[in-house]
Amino acid sequence: MTRLDDILAYADAQLDQSLGRLFELIRIPSVSTEPEYAGDCQRAAEWLAVQLAEIGMDASVRPTQGHPMVVGHGPAVPGPHVLFYGHYDVQPVDPLNLWNTPPFEPSLAPQPDGETYILGRGASDDKGQLLTFIEACRAWKAVTGSLPIRVSMLFEGEEEAGSPSLGPFLEANAEDLKADTILVCDTDMWDRETPAITTMWRGFVSEEFEVTTADRDLHSGMFGSAARNAVQLIGTIIGKLRNDDGSVAIPGFYDGVTELPEANRKEWERLPFDPEKFLGDVGLSIPAGEAGRSVLEQVWARPTAEVHGVWGGYAGDGFKTVIPAKAGAKISFRLVAGQDPERIRKIFRDFVTALIPADCSVTFKSYAAAGAQTMPLDGKLLNKARTALTEEWQRETALAGTGGSIPILGEFKQRLGMDSLLIGFARFDNRIHSPNEKYDLSSFHRGIRSWVRILHAFSE
Amino acid sequence: MTRLDDILAYADAQLDQSLGRLFELIRIPSVSTEPEYAGDCQRAAEWLAVQLAEIGMDASVRPTQGHPMVVGHGPAVPGPHVLFYGHYDVQPVDPLNLWNTPPFEPSLAPQPDGETYILGRGASDDKGQLLTFIEACRAWKAVTGSLPIRVSMLFEGEEEAGSPSLGPFLEANAEDLKADTILVCDTDMWDRETPAITTMWRGFVSEEFEVTTADRDLHSGMFGSAARNAVQLIGTIIGKLRNDDGSVAIPGFYDGVTELPEANRKEWERLPFDPEKFLGDVGLSIPAGEAGRSVLEQVWARPTAEVHGVWGGYAGDGFKTVIPAKAGAKISFRLVAGQDPERIRKIFRDFVTALIPADCSVTFKSYAAAGAQTMPLDGKLLNKARTALTEEWQRETALAGTGGSIPILGEFKQRLGMDSLLIGFARFDNRIHSPNEKYDLSSFHRGIRSWVRILHAFSE
Repeated sequence: MTRLDDILAYADAQLDQSLGRLFELIRIPSVSTEPEYAGDCQRAAEWLAVQLAEIGMDASVRPTQGHPMVVGHGPAVPGPHVLFYGHYDVQPVDPLNLWNTPPFEPSLAPQPDGETYILGRGASDDKGQLLTFIEACRAWKAVTGSLPIRVSMLFEGEEEAGSPSLGPFLEANAEDLKADTILVCDTDMWDRETPAITTMWRGFVSEEFEVTTADRDLHSGMFGSAARNAVQLIGTIIGKLRNDDGSVAIPGFYDGVTELPEANRKEWERLPFDPEKFLGDVGLSIPAGEAGRSVLEQVWARPTAEVHGVWGGYAGDGFKTVIPAKAGAKISFRLVAGQDPERIRKIFRDFVTALIPADCSVTFKSYAAAGAQTMPLDGKLLNKARTALTEEWQRETALAGTGGSIPILGEFKQRLGMDSLLIGFARFDNRIHSPNEKYDLSSFHRGIRSWVRILHAFSE
Repeated sequence: MTRLDDILAYADAQLDQSLGRLFELIRIPSVSTEPEYAGDCQRAAEWLAVQLAEIGMDASVRPTQGHPMVVGHGPAVPGPHVLFYGHYDVQPVDPLNLWNTPPFEPSLAPQPDGETYILGRGASDDKGQLLTFIEACRAWKAVTGSLPIRVSMLFEGEEEAGSPSLGPFLEANAEDLKADTILVCDTDMWDRETPAITTMWRGFVSEEFEVTTADRDLHSGMFGSAARNAVQLIGTIIGKLRNDDGSVAIPGFYDGVTELPEANRKEWERLPFDPEKFLGDVGLSIPAGEAGRSVLEQVWARPTAEVHGVWGGYAGDGFKTVIPAKAGAKISFRLVAGQDPERIRKIFRDFVTALIPADCSVTFKSYAAAGAQTMPLDGKLLNKARTALTEEWQRETALAGTGGSIPILGEFKQRLGMDSLLIGFARFDNRIHSPNEKYDLSSFHRGIRSWVRILHAFSE
């Protein structure tokens, strides 16, 4: 038996103990956005520091303006140095009445198909996922007495609250935290059996705007036609945002946008992805994005404008013949490499302002922004991880994109110059952020085994 | 002294008694839309029937499915036969805390400029206005022993509730109610000193519609660009409703629309109307209607589309990156002579339906409709009334339009074939339908005098 097989066998044998530790962590209700749980966030941080100490790391709980960070460093050994990032905070549990089991009392629920669900808030996001890495390190330490490469870890307690302390903490601790790459376990598998590394994600920039026409609501019998209607105006602006071909109509929006690299295109072409099923599962059949682009390109590799909400005038029961004086909307842009979020914010505001009649006005409110990132597909660590995952799951690893945005990784890139490897074992039906969150026992078990293999591969 | 002067002098001398009767009527809280006031509506109807009996009319309270009608007939005499229409019901008083005096306890409030406000719900709309006519008849009866022409009256108690019983009642009592013209006292003066006859009003048709894209709200990170966004779709539809030149973009919308008759145009040209002040008073300066049309034409003589409310997606605090699956809007069209409301409803629905992608859907909900009406300016009674008003107010009477709609008069036209003469003494600042409704004492007093003169003119 090779050393790797020993460690995998140890991880298998210790699964119940690993699961016991996950249950301990889930029982700590570390909801970051609700002040009454601040003590629990502190407890979760201290609990993690104990785990890191148990695997031989120099671990500490570090205060911030908000909830604390946990930092751990393993001994320096030759080879690559990785920084594993995770978050110990969880989403609120409302509405509580929709939970079938108490959210902070974890339990196992065997399923008809042989899978077993680990139920509880944070079971997947991110307590279950981050523990796959710690438990893999624990197995290495137990069997070999050490970790095969230099490993550092950073856990924050404010990810579900927008990570306000992360940037300043990285800035203040840049030297302490710098490593060759960041590992993150907070993403999904490609499908139930196919492992995935997420190699590109979109950026975004979000805005709210409100137009004002008259200085009060008017009666359409008295003023109808002659007085500017704020809802008509906001409709006109929204209507002009996208062209008939699905593209965004703001002048300059596509400046700097690069075509999908050929390497990514090749990877995506072989992915088992059915665009008809993707849309069909939500009741749609006609892609609404840029004509001539595949659905995967539309959602992963192309920028877009999406209106998230609109309001104005009378929306209650019955009818009121008012000419509304105010109307507003919330909008965000998903961005790709080559687009500067703050430049997009500016040209959006210019675009809207140009559509406002001289006797009307508009106000804007900034919301968050983050850049897009694309990881090179020829990285040495990425390809070692890919091979290790393929060996564990016996399926070719997907090098996938995501249409979502991961602002914290922009912080790492911007402040520490570090790229990221996103490897996660969650499944699409885990109901993260919703009642009855679960993590599959097979995700947890084979996630631990996957990291055992990845650490091995990195040390070769 | 002529007979007319005697009657005017009597009306002047009896003003306090007339005011006392108005106070009696205001004290009856005849709110038609709130079931707990049903008994008060009945009481108001009975009170009116007593007034009509006092001036020698054959008066009766007539039950309907809702609140009762009051019908009165004066003796048949040679000359024209008029049917005076009014409504004894009033709007609800919410929000009560904004009233400076109790809404159903009428009072007088002298103003610095010498005017006196009659305060109370219904003081203007329509109790004060309808009593100007009854009190004028009372003066005629008191001084001469009879009315100078044949007068009938009809009062309803559901005008503020959409007049559901009026059409059936007219239908069932067509023979009893038929007269040469309808007189209505429910409109404004042109300005504080200038009397007005309203000779044209717009029709309308109102619709609510809701679009559905996906079968649930989606996350813009996962689906952004490829999945149809319901708020984007409703914005696109609203944006396409009006052309850049302010006209309505629905194909066929202007079919049958006639140009303003030359007689009306001439009347309007001499009206003291300042379009800059009209818009400036509500904080606007640029007419939003059809380019090349005057503001008066835009609001009185041209049809329009107005969106009264829009909804969809997340409109609360903060930000949610949702792709909304549903969005809706309420819209109405103001129409002019030559436009059939139901045809406009149909072409609007066709217009919207053509913009719905094949994998999305739209539902429509019908709200009320009414045709536009234009009274000929060369009618004998209209010109007699005009002269009488000019004599009373010593200002040229305005023959005005209104951009609003008066559905009940469509009922009279459609069911009884009768045209209407709209003569009212309300002022623009009467706060009808709002807290602190008032009627000017001069409106009440000179309104009574005006009707005394009009009855005289009709009898000549």
